[in-house]
Amino acid sequence: MSTNFPILKNDLMLKALKGEDVPRPPVWMMRQAGRYLPEYMELRGKYTFFERVETPDLACEITMQPIRRFSPDAAIIFSDILVVLQAIGIEVTLNPGEGPRIPNPVSTPEQAFALRVPDVHDRLHYVMEALTLTRHALQGEAALIGFAGAPWTLFCYLIEGKGSKDFSRAKAFYWQHPEASKHILSVITQTTIAYLKAQIAAGAQIVQVFDSWSGLLSPEDFNEIAFPYLIEICNAITEAPVILYPKGSWYALEAISYRTKAAALGVDWCITPEYARVATRNDITLQGNFDPSKLLASPDVITKSVHRMIDRFGSKKYIANLGHGILPFVPVDHARAFFDAVKFWEPSENK
Amino acid sequence: MSTNFPILKNDLMLKALKGEDVPRPPVWMMRQAGRYLPEYMELRGKYTFFERVETPDLACEITMQPIRRFSPDAAIIFSDILVVLQAIGIEVTLNPGEGPRIPNPVSTPEQAFALRVPDVHDRLHYVMEALTLTRHALQGEAALIGFAGAPWTLFCYLIEGKGSKDFSRAKAFYWQHPEASKHILSVITQTTIAYLKAQIAAGAQIVQVFDSWSGLLSPEDFNEIAFPYLIEICNAITEAPVILYPKGSWYALEAISYRTKAAALGVDWCITPEYARVATRNDITLQGNFDPSKLLASPDVITKSVHRMIDRFGSKKYIANLGHGILPFVPVDHARAFFDAVKFWEPSENK
Repeated sequence: MSTNFPILKNDLMLKALKGEDVPRPPVWMMRQAGRYLPEYMELRGKYTFFERVETPDLACEITMQPIRRFSPDAAIIFSDILVVLQAIGIEVTLNPGEGPRIPNPVSTPEQAFALRVPDVHDRLHYVMEALTLTRHALQGEAALIGFAGAPWTLFCYLIEGKGSKDFSRAKAFYWQHPEASKHILSVITQTTIAYLKAQIAAGAQIVQVFDSWSGLLSPEDFNEIAFPYLIEICNAITEAPVILYPKGSWYALEAISYRTKAAALGVDWCITPEYARVATRNDITLQGNFDPSKLLASPDVITKSVHRMIDRFGSKKYIANLGHGILPFVPVDHARAFFDAVKFWEPSENK
Repeated sequence: MSTNFPILKNDLMLKALKGEDVPRPPVWMMRQAGRYLPEYMELRGKYTFFERVETPDLACEITMQPIRRFSPDAAIIFSDILVVLQAIGIEVTLNPGEGPRIPNPVSTPEQAFALRVPDVHDRLHYVMEALTLTRHALQGEAALIGFAGAPWTLFCYLIEGKGSKDFSRAKAFYWQHPEASKHILSVITQTTIAYLKAQIAAGAQIVQVFDSWSGLLSPEDFNEIAFPYLIEICNAITEAPVILYPKGSWYALEAISYRTKAAALGVDWCITPEYARVATRNDITLQGNFDPSKLLASPDVITKSVHRMIDRFGSKKYIANLGHGILPFVPVDHARAFFDAVKFWEPSENK
């Protein structure tokens, strides 16, 4: 399919990522294509999760659903972080009502050392096709974001085999088999770099790396187990801006901002805007950090809280977003209140 | 039963809580009476959870099990934070293999306003009996810790009805019904104050308040929903030192240290000793913060990591502990390595 894409008419996201002046901050929502949307639930009733992920037309349609409703400034491709594990030959299952499962998690150093970097174009071609389709469908009205899970977060699932409160078995595997663990982390890192480059070539204008479980690590363990691979990925991706989202790793903001080439840093709602700005010396664009649960408050409260959030972060070097994915049972009108609050925000001198 | 207790021969805990010099920091472990101990599993096979909690002889026996094995410097009474909800008339169930359940969670303001402060001596007499029994059984070899859940954490369970990753329904109830929520939080606070005072009168020499879910709140929400009640409890408990453990609320360390009368502050493993000392201006005793998952590393690694932890916190104004409860599948020898590492730690000038 042609990669002769429509011109990007809405450049708020790219401007914010470069630190350029914008009339208002751009806005999108993690998991904006998700279960709170009735049109998503309709497709969910017809196709399995991996049918939706692996069929480019469906993935494109799902990605476009929130764009039609809310016109956010970015679309994030509908996919899953675990496709990278599938690409390296790991079976992943997902049954409705439970989280993802890896029926045969890695449990020995031998299994770990047997893992190899796959050809991502071959194994994950459907993601690239979905990105190209979506980039055309967007018609330049919103920037297109590709994404991947961070090596530590994928390692967690690969060893634990499912979600966990503490991923203690994954940590234990690391401490018991550090060399085998480093091999796994390196294979995931190389695969992720190739995968993100392929996503950008296929149409992604920005990529986000989700380290969903980095916050379970102590600062010392983060520096050893998670951070080197994030640095490696950010250094390797020169074709598009990278947004790093190391959930819960408040202690690492300073180091991430000066030791990686990330264009932006996602922060959660436990981090105040003031703390985030001081820790990053206002050197990096920040993204976040509305408490997803607060979308269950009234639209009035949402509007006021969003305006206050922007006032505190400032409209420059800032991307309005949630601090984590939108929850499934948020009323659509409340999601709309969030998007509208950003769009109708005005600098305080105009208030 | 007589409250003419044996003399406390081991005063390391009380000295550390007062900030006095100690030859080594005291040590105990959250959930040290728990599922990693075979002798606990034996009783677990014979009695239901609430039989174990509500039978003073059993609660005493379970509390004493880790004392016999490891001789820690404190015993924490075997009980559960949810007994306070039971005391205010809420049914709580616990089936093996799943977390606690509240079959009829509070879902309307009417139900909230109907809640009243109960007579804790009447409703929770078995806890006080277990404390008195245990204080005698300890023979002064270890300090006895009583405990309660913090109001916000109990509110979470009361509204959500079970454990949750985000307690979004509990938060939503607060935002939708702030007055009813404040009534609930106030009822829990008054009940908790009476309960902790009763525990101290019955033999507890220290009390710990567990705010297990405070880290789910943004700093602003923490200040509104959690903190005022923690301050109220700490101000009211003058009979014994209070240890506050607001899990995950790294952003609140400074305010907690100067705005409450807590004697100590529990910190988790995402908070470095250096950050905690600076944030609290070395004004308060710190407790923690070993990653519970790290007890799955080899005993050698455990020993080295524990020594490094003590070197970083310093031996004064410090209580060695985990950053959260011990995990069920930790080998007993690894738990022993943790206790021994603290006991055989030496100041660096002696190394």
